[in-house]
Amino acid sequence: MEVERKFLVPDPPDLEGAEADEIEQGYLATGADGEVRLRRKGDARLLTAKLGAGLSRQEEEVEIDRDSFDRLWQLTEGRRLHKRRHVLPDGNRRVEVDVYEGDLDGLVVAEIEFDSEEEARAFEPLDWLGEEVTGDERYLNETLATRGPPDR
Amino acid sequence: MEVERKFLVPDPPDLEGAEADEIEQGYLATGADGEVRLRRKGDARLLTAKLGAGLSRQEEEVEIDRDSFDRLWQLTEGRRLHKRRHVLPDGNRRVEVDVYEGDLDGLVVAEIEFDSEEEARAFEPLDWLGEEVTGDERYLNETLATRGPPDR
Repeated sequence: MEVERKFLVPDPPDLEGAEADEIEQGYLATGADGEVRLRRKGDARLLTAKLGAGLSRQEEEVEIDRDSFDRLWQLTEGRRLHKRRHVLPDGNRRVEVDVYEGDLDGLVVAEIEFDSEEEARAFEPLDWLGEEVTGDERYLNETLATRGPPDR
Repeated sequence: MEVERKFLVPDPPDLEGAEADEIEQGYLATGADGEVRLRRKGDARLLTAKLGAGLSRQEEEVEIDRDSFDRLWQLTEGRRLHKRRHVLPDGNRRVEVDVYEGDLDGLVVAEIEFDSEEEARAFEPLDWLGEEVTGDERYLNETLATRGPPDR
């Protein structure tokens, strides 16, 4: 089981030199009955299908070739996002800092993954982490790609 | 543009010896915002994404490998159908006769594809074609896979 906490990052730390990947993703379908996403991360081209919502979410990810990716990608117009993901170590954890680009420019979100709910609860947020948005649907990538940045 | 007419077949003609394929399909996502379908037809394993509805529907189909297919297929449970598709020649046209199996056993549907709306309108149904169900959402494969046979 995946336990994550997500935070806004109003004032990012220095990300120069951090391990980073360009991520472009677009949605073929969204919604509770099934979500299908394309993601290009560096040279990897992935298709991910998710079923259900919340804790019982099932997920499968497969690699697809460049030609298939390009053809399917056309159908994601208007449901795409682009971000640069930086990975910062924090003890034995990884903090992923996503810096959004394009229409979502200015948005920076950090995610931390935990092995258990206990560990997640015990986590003391680093001082540069801002408002917690764990579980806030406005900050799901699917929502950001289809509806754009939240009004705040 | 694809123009099709669809008919129920209450009393199928002899299908022995007709060109035929086993088709299994399952849905990763359904709905107006995007439909993503897996189909196994003989040895071919395909993923098809459709966007929009009606005449302006965009569609892309790609082949995927067996392992990827099998992993994604798990997520289609409860949204699958199985049919045997027979192709009967009718002059220079092809009539596809789908004989459904499993939960949809007993349902037989014929589809004819035309080059134009004029040609579609001019078509004189063969005498074994029953009630026309063109455009009837209850007979979309997506509906049949998720809701089962129509109450009639």
